[in-house]
Amino acid sequence: MEVTASLLDQINSPADLRKLSKEKLEILCNELREFIIEAVSSNPAHLGASLGVVELTVALHYVFDTPNDKIIWDVGHQAYGHKILTGRKERFHTNRKFKGISGFPNIFESEYDAFSVGHSSTSISAALGMAIAAKKNQQNTQFVAVIGDGALTAGLAFEGINNLAANYCNVLIIVNDNNIAIDANVGGMSDYLVDIATSHTYNKVRRELFKTLGKIKLVGPRSRDLIIKINNSIKTFLTKQANIFESFNIRYFGPVDGHDVERLADVLTDLKDIPGPKVLHIITKKGKGFKIAEEKQTEWHAPVGKFDKDTGEYYFSTTEKSNSTRFQDVFGNTIVELARMNEKIVGITPAMPTGCSLNIMMKEMPDRAFDVGIAEQHAVTFSAGLAMGGLLPFCNIYSSFMQRAYDQVIHDVALQKLNVVFCLDRGGLVGADGATHQGAYDLAYFRIIPNMIVSAPMDEIELRNLMYTAQLPNKGAFSIRYPRGTGSIIDWQQPFKEIPIGKGRKLRNGKHLAIITIGTIGLTVSKICEDFSKKGIEIAQFDMRFVKPIDTELLHDVFTNFKKIITVEDGCLQGGMGSAVLEFIADNNYQTTIKRLGIPDNFIEHGTQEELYKVCGIDEDGIIKAITEFGII
Amino acid sequence: MEVTASLLDQINSPADLRKLSKEKLEILCNELREFIIEAVSSNPAHLGASLGVVELTVALHYVFDTPNDKIIWDVGHQAYGHKILTGRKERFHTNRKFKGISGFPNIFESEYDAFSVGHSSTSISAALGMAIAAKKNQQNTQFVAVIGDGALTAGLAFEGINNLAANYCNVLIIVNDNNIAIDANVGGMSDYLVDIATSHTYNKVRRELFKTLGKIKLVGPRSRDLIIKINNSIKTFLTKQANIFESFNIRYFGPVDGHDVERLADVLTDLKDIPGPKVLHIITKKGKGFKIAEEKQTEWHAPVGKFDKDTGEYYFSTTEKSNSTRFQDVFGNTIVELARMNEKIVGITPAMPTGCSLNIMMKEMPDRAFDVGIAEQHAVTFSAGLAMGGLLPFCNIYSSFMQRAYDQVIHDVALQKLNVVFCLDRGGLVGADGATHQGAYDLAYFRIIPNMIVSAPMDEIELRNLMYTAQLPNKGAFSIRYPRGTGSIIDWQQPFKEIPIGKGRKLRNGKHLAIITIGTIGLTVSKICEDFSKKGIEIAQFDMRFVKPIDTELLHDVFTNFKKIITVEDGCLQGGMGSAVLEFIADNNYQTTIKRLGIPDNFIEHGTQEELYKVCGIDEDGIIKAITEFGII
Repeated sequence: MEVTASLLDQINSPADLRKLSKEKLEILCNELREFIIEAVSSNPAHLGASLGVVELTVALHYVFDTPNDKIIWDVGHQAYGHKILTGRKERFHTNRKFKGISGFPNIFESEYDAFSVGHSSTSISAALGMAIAAKKNQQNTQFVAVIGDGALTAGLAFEGINNLAANYCNVLIIVNDNNIAIDANVGGMSDYLVDIATSHTYNKVRRELFKTLGKIKLVGPRSRDLIIKINNSIKTFLTKQANIFESFNIRYFGPVDGHDVERLADVLTDLKDIPGPKVLHIITKKGKGFKIAEEKQTEWHAPVGKFDKDTGEYYFSTTEKSNSTRFQDVFGNTIVELARMNEKIVGITPAMPTGCSLNIMMKEMPDRAFDVGIAEQHAVTFSAGLAMGGLLPFCNIYSSFMQRAYDQVIHDVALQKLNVVFCLDRGGLVGADGATHQGAYDLAYFRIIPNMIVSAPMDEIELRNLMYTAQLPNKGAFSIRYPRGTGSIIDWQQPFKEIPIGKGRKLRNGKHLAIITIGTIGLTVSKICEDFSKKGIEIAQFDMRFVKPIDTELLHDVFTNFKKIITVEDGCLQGGMGSAVLEFIADNNYQTTIKRLGIPDNFIEHGTQEELYKVCGIDEDGIIKAITEFGII
Repeated sequence: MEVTASLLDQINSPADLRKLSKEKLEILCNELREFIIEAVSSNPAHLGASLGVVELTVALHYVFDTPNDKIIWDVGHQAYGHKILTGRKERFHTNRKFKGISGFPNIFESEYDAFSVGHSSTSISAALGMAIAAKKNQQNTQFVAVIGDGALTAGLAFEGINNLAANYCNVLIIVNDNNIAIDANVGGMSDYLVDIATSHTYNKVRRELFKTLGKIKLVGPRSRDLIIKINNSIKTFLTKQANIFESFNIRYFGPVDGHDVERLADVLTDLKDIPGPKVLHIITKKGKGFKIAEEKQTEWHAPVGKFDKDTGEYYFSTTEKSNSTRFQDVFGNTIVELARMNEKIVGITPAMPTGCSLNIMMKEMPDRAFDVGIAEQHAVTFSAGLAMGGLLPFCNIYSSFMQRAYDQVIHDVALQKLNVVFCLDRGGLVGADGATHQGAYDLAYFRIIPNMIVSAPMDEIELRNLMYTAQLPNKGAFSIRYPRGTGSIIDWQQPFKEIPIGKGRKLRNGKHLAIITIGTIGLTVSKICEDFSKKGIEIAQFDMRFVKPIDTELLHDVFTNFKKIITVEDGCLQGGMGSAVLEFIADNNYQTTIKRLGIPDNFIEHGTQEELYKVCGIDEDGIIKAITEFGII
């Protein structure tokens, strides 16, 4: 199938789009959808979300005066159609690539990107702030926050709705209800939206009402508005369900078929004229228009490799697959092994069961694994409650998302000395997801919390053993961070061994220089030391394993025997492991020369992990350069 | 008026309480209320909240089998009655004092304190976790989360409700609706609860229904349950308001008069037998039973000094008041001065207008100051939106509460290089509020964020000048932290001066030793240096002013001229200002001896600020001791 794209080719900006007759929009949607599938098939990225909002994207730019009016995409991985329509079609093949366009809206990339994003549920608060600013500046700007039903489960979205209610501003919230976040949706909010959208009685009565009043397209905006309002009260009455938005005095409209682009354009045109805060509830299908993505929504949220754009078949064969295992799967399998032995263990994830592989436990032990939805704060305080009740929660949160639950770790877990194990997935540089998702700060922000154990394994076996150790009695708050990606050990499923808390290990003797590492970047350093050794230069390597408590015995050994030291970590230089070592040096009055390598003090954009290590000077070349410059050779 | 307390004297634990006949409960409530007023009149503490829940407290311990059943008090400053009834009556005069009992529930203090707390909105998530653990352990425990309407505005509470809906557990949420948090309540949730509770039609119909069915006390539990349910659907129907809890399939009961202890006991008895998640909505009056506290709820949330327990008159006279000004009021007055000059400035507080003195701006410029309710995450993302729209938000959040919005600072403000000024109130040791409220971590957790300016003024004039500097064009994310309490300068209202970003200052020359300080603790050090100088020992002092960007020129000067250095900060030693200095030393390869003073790596309990400085070794004696031990004398 050849992509013809005759209409799409004419669209260089939304101004071009707005010249089209309404009847042409459906054709444009089809072309845009094909373009996205084609692009993602050769440059794997998020797929399902953008396919689901093709019609919405076209309708929004058709109706609203972008970039003067502002569309704020929540999370932002559904904004591919938006990017393609707003002048980035030619560069779209660079999506998520090093120096290419970002996979998320980014204010530094385009004036059409109204708010930079990556984490979920910020759109309503951001839109409200921008709308109040516009009001103060007497600008008659429209603000549209597009938020999925999954993102509505986060407390920040609720705080935004609550405050929107208290301020009369031109903010339109579009709830994109596909009833699936990355994994299945969780909690009351999800059931609630389904109830509204699927009530048979409601839909039947609505159809009859439409029949009576004539076709919606024939009546003018005013009566249509009225119909929508009637719809709404019928719905409220018939479903005997409360409408959360109306509780908050935010006018609710819908539900509307999110794949009928002309209808969407009509409704949006009407809503544009209604001042004040309002909600439009649309129903869409994630992966819409690409059969396999519609059927397997979780799997095709973000395809894992290049695929045939017609059949959806991946180009790599299963036999080609690497023999090594993702750290995620080491976690997922190990927690199940441990849970079989220790009945106190439970697993918690905020909406990332597939991403972090807790789905393995959810399948085998459904009553012991909890997906709490996009709700990191709750995930941590809930874990504190579970621990208070005598269970042993493993709470798995991506490093950059843990920033959302920082207070809960301090206030609810560490302060009460509760046995909660935090498995920080995506620690360090994550690659294509870019600046919002880099797990750069966790070692630094966790090690300042009293009572915390802060660790990072160098390989799969260490990860297993740290997890084993963390579930032994009375360990308190225990953090284990590991990176996105695969390890290198094939037979990682070794018998468990306890690791003494706060004990690092000497990996290699040396005399010219000592390198102190934490986490999987230690593997790169090991290889370097091996290579230097072949040239007769002996570099010692120490794997700290724990940033806190730090191994003072090991450090005394290092600083007694070495005057030149390098620290290497896949984390921020400010306040990280290297700084913990500096604190030890100062407290013990060692005089030494120390060079710290890690993530520098700026936000690191997207690229492959390898490219980003290079940017940060913590790839093989960068570390060798640092060693060489240290003057030992 | 003499407190007789004949009943209260017999209550050494809730078991004693449960021996009383129901008719005696009201007398006990009166005695308990008198006891609290008496105690707080001579040992100032939170007052209004505990007075408001006297009847609820008595009814809960009367009906539930505490400590086997668990009461989880949200925020916890309303738990004085609970503490007094659970064996801490004799120690209650030590409330919030050094080595005394905590002003909040604390699991290390009593088995009746089910969950330690201090920050708001954790109770539902914690109760859910504990309830699931109990279910797994096949314990038939009841869990009661008592949460105010103010705390319901926080996203964490919503996440908890959403997840409670998805889990069938014996959790009773009691919404204590006094329609006032610390300041007036904000947003849709607040209006919504008022609507339910005050609908005249609803109340009239309910009264008539009661008349028809006979007195509620005469019918058995089953029919009473039915009545409550009928009430509920009447309410939903009549108010045409959605009930947010029922949207989430959590059964709702109420509203009930929270000051009718017998009725409360009856209702709670009935609810105890209804399995699954449920909500009881009670209406109370903050400060109930103490006239002046009922009338001036915000002011009497926490009295500021000892008072006459009969008249409510403060014992200190206004003329005795100190001439110095609270840093809070320096902030509150300065933002108004700046806002008069710069029309872009707006002020934001999450529910602390009185505490942080933004109320001064709210009064003079009501349309430019926003109280967003207890919603720190929203406060920050909303500020980001305001800044995106071209305004210049001053977002004032207590240091320990800023932990709630850490991700939003990184993801929504710093990443987008937005001009948001964070005024971190209660930085450093806060005193009587204790471990949950110490502002220990902000310098450390903020300085690791790229693009941030992190500052702390030494005195009132510096605070003003930093605020002035922060609102000059293109300063980006700018944090200014200052402590709870008064300064010492009388004529602090000096003309504004710009402070160069990242520039510290030399306060005093010296030769034996250099002390580097940040923030108001620099004043203590200045005095010490002065005293040493009189003895002929010259100690240099440098006030960094900025932890980030750090003044490298100044530090080169220090480390070129001094070999002995002490750093002093009112913040955590791990990763704080001292560590930033260590990073500079390592990066520039200075060989030096450095001693860091600050808050050590454990949670610091309550006491006066002076007592806590001593505990941490950063009071005058502690700093002198460190100087002396350094061997310069």
